[in-house]
Amino acid sequence: MGETFVVVGGDAAGMSAASKAKREDPDLEVIVFEKGEWVSYGACGMPYYVKGDIGELEDLVAITPERFREERDIDLRTHSEVVGIDREADSVTVENDEGTYEQSYDDLLVATGARAIRPPIDGMDLDGVFTFHSMESARAVRDSVAGESGESVDSPDSPDSPDSPDSLDSPDSLDSPESVGIIGGGYIGLEMAEAFDARGLDVSVFEMLPHVLDPFGDAIAEEVEDHLREQGVSLHLDTMVEAISGEGGRVAGVETDAGHHAVDAVLVATGVAPNAELAERAGIEVGETGAIATDEYGRTNDEHVYAAGDCAEARNVVTDAPDWVPLALTANRAGRAIGATVAGDRTETGGIVGTAAVKVFDLEVARAGITDPEVAEEAGFDPVSKVITAESRAHYYPGGKPITVEMVGDRESGRLLGAAMVGEEGVAKRIDTVATALHAGMTVEEVQNLDLSYAPPFSPTWDPVLTAAKVLSGKLE
Amino acid sequence: MGETFVVVGGDAAGMSAASKAKREDPDLEVIVFEKGEWVSYGACGMPYYVKGDIGELEDLVAITPERFREERDIDLRTHSEVVGIDREADSVTVENDEGTYEQSYDDLLVATGARAIRPPIDGMDLDGVFTFHSMESARAVRDSVAGESGESVDSPDSPDSPDSPDSLDSPDSLDSPESVGIIGGGYIGLEMAEAFDARGLDVSVFEMLPHVLDPFGDAIAEEVEDHLREQGVSLHLDTMVEAISGEGGRVAGVETDAGHHAVDAVLVATGVAPNAELAERAGIEVGETGAIATDEYGRTNDEHVYAAGDCAEARNVVTDAPDWVPLALTANRAGRAIGATVAGDRTETGGIVGTAAVKVFDLEVARAGITDPEVAEEAGFDPVSKVITAESRAHYYPGGKPITVEMVGDRESGRLLGAAMVGEEGVAKRIDTVATALHAGMTVEEVQNLDLSYAPPFSPTWDPVLTAAKVLSGKLE
Repeated sequence: MGETFVVVGGDAAGMSAASKAKREDPDLEVIVFEKGEWVSYGACGMPYYVKGDIGELEDLVAITPERFREERDIDLRTHSEVVGIDREADSVTVENDEGTYEQSYDDLLVATGARAIRPPIDGMDLDGVFTFHSMESARAVRDSVAGESGESVDSPDSPDSPDSPDSLDSPDSLDSPESVGIIGGGYIGLEMAEAFDARGLDVSVFEMLPHVLDPFGDAIAEEVEDHLREQGVSLHLDTMVEAISGEGGRVAGVETDAGHHAVDAVLVATGVAPNAELAERAGIEVGETGAIATDEYGRTNDEHVYAAGDCAEARNVVTDAPDWVPLALTANRAGRAIGATVAGDRTETGGIVGTAAVKVFDLEVARAGITDPEVAEEAGFDPVSKVITAESRAHYYPGGKPITVEMVGDRESGRLLGAAMVGEEGVAKRIDTVATALHAGMTVEEVQNLDLSYAPPFSPTWDPVLTAAKVLSGKLE
Repeated sequence: MGETFVVVGGDAAGMSAASKAKREDPDLEVIVFEKGEWVSYGACGMPYYVKGDIGELEDLVAITPERFREERDIDLRTHSEVVGIDREADSVTVENDEGTYEQSYDDLLVATGARAIRPPIDGMDLDGVFTFHSMESARAVRDSVAGESGESVDSPDSPDSPDSPDSLDSPDSLDSPESVGIIGGGYIGLEMAEAFDARGLDVSVFEMLPHVLDPFGDAIAEEVEDHLREQGVSLHLDTMVEAISGEGGRVAGVETDAGHHAVDAVLVATGVAPNAELAERAGIEVGETGAIATDEYGRTNDEHVYAAGDCAEARNVVTDAPDWVPLALTANRAGRAIGATVAGDRTETGGIVGTAAVKVFDLEVARAGITDPEVAEEAGFDPVSKVITAESRAHYYPGGKPITVEMVGDRESGRLLGAAMVGEEGVAKRIDTVATALHAGMTVEEVQNLDLSYAPPFSPTWDPVLTAAKVLSGKLE
């Protein structure tokens, strides 16, 4: 009654918490501060906006600010940045266009998200260098490569004009790049490779590690690399980008430890870092991962301060240790649970197993659990790994595609530790079987004995996950 | 050493057992008796052979008899029917073209499969009436509807000529039916509806129950029925077929309790029954389901006699009771486990959760666990059910399709009991998440907290399975 729940950050975790809290307790005053314009947007869809699969940036928005305000009765304040937390006074300092003010809270949620890492190299400020972690950045990239004029003009909610308004009138001008260098071969880098390729650009990917998609393991990564090359992407693995070179203030190339590569534009996709500083300055504990430490209810070391989403840790069920995997479902779920808890219904945020899926051109790539032997060993396991290839459909049914599965188990306990897989169909959701088995703490032998679905158009009799478990099980004996 | 393992039946369970036993113990003498010509064939693919997706009946064979004999050193005897088991003498009586003989065994596996039920109605012997539970029957159906001449002539291994050789020369003759009545709206009936439709026939399905696909529940079945009607299939639900009428010895129509329907051909797909008689006559126990009762190692009440596949029961993990679900994976797995056990490596056959998937024209339909409230109540549960519809992809990603999920949980324990779902994509393998959760005995709340994969092309942030669990969880509280 009359209590105030303040949320810092208006994306997945923040808006889920605000909505759930208000729904469970309509008397609660729920205030959300969002420093930008956009709330509740699907950042994961931005590559497909650049690619052109999605017409308008606004299409990525699940619920508009108006609906949050009017239908859900949430006091959503955009263009309002929280610059300080005073835990003694239970209040936050808010900056907006008109100045600065204090807002007191009974419960506070820090949902400040993550930011794109900007590597400390020369040339980051050249025209034609893009990072990719905000709606505005997505618009800038699309405006630059679309070869269509004024797409953003259609959007009445568009917060501001694009950085290079001259491109609106001259889609074929020199400003439209013909080639792009992507620094970083992670999810975003590879999704954007597909997007740029669809826009007709020559795409080069620079990855400092020996393989792309590091968390998926070498066997899976190598198949992705073969596929990228088949699609015409130029791959530079084990290659460190040392600088971005320019000419007349615009990108001219990428300078690596293996030489110069001429490109017209650069996308920097070298990963993200948690926005934990606001909380840290207020004495909120940050874990070893660099993200905000939380308990099973998403609470920080201050019982009235919660953290969720890309700025916060979650418990990894496989290692039973804190982990930082900044993905959308974790953010949504933790936000929702915290909203319920704040409204009086104590709800655990739930553990994670590091499940992820990504589309890379015609491939589906997915993972769950621990597949990296070093990480497994650090967590106290003796990992045994096996790679198999099976078909996505019955051998006689047309259109089947090979699926490669790497599965990892613990030698002593026989426990399933994780798996990664790749193929042209039936991969992204097949990983959920592995994720569910990991949540249940199953052994590889138990996985082998799962009663999974079979019908000729959808699977061989022994699903690839079962085949992987069967073969790995033999190796664990 | 010198021991003999005799297998009765050369399909999934039998050949899996024979292969595994011989591989684990090469000194074992392994003899398989198969009364027909075909072994190790994919019966599940037969509808697609009729449809024309699969060129030759031989394509359905995973491993030829020659390979079993030569590569796997299995004494495979086709055209050899076991007509008696003498458990006192530890021997079986075998009939082949040349006569009858006894074969002694140290261990015996009964893998006699199931047979199509022939309803006791008039007209079953008319020309143009087909059942569908053998390779020969699949060939006969295809020959009758293909509208192409002599497809079977290409097959050197073809055991015999088709029943109506005249159709070879006259594909457009009166013998080629233009309409077909399918009696039974189960898996086979609906897969065959698709196959006949693809061959240009007018298809009518007659189902005596109120809905098709009974084990999937009304909500899912209704969507399948809508889809069938959209595809031009004439559905007759709640309709009992009382006779097949003929003219000049050929099918002329189907007589139901709702009247006469003129059709040129009839497919009888009223389910299957376990071939348990051979075992039963030898004093082997049969369970309440009518299939052969087995323990966790696939053993019958005689410790040297095992049973597996479509003739045998398996333990349902959800009810912890014997169940009979004659499907391919169960047969393969049980056969393999029994082969290992016989070779000295005691291996459990594994429980089942009744997972099944079927393609019906453009729909994927899948189920796992207990979804029928009556069955749940009989098993001592207090079932609560919820139906939701969600999207197969992120809301903004093009091409997403609705997926309808019915999920059932137990009110008191909160335990997940089962689910069924339907949609145009991403259904058949999504059910595996449910199957895995059922094996683990998860509560609906635990399912709601699973870390399932998310990427815009493959799933909304909250996977439909999670959404169903979330909504059902609210109803269980």
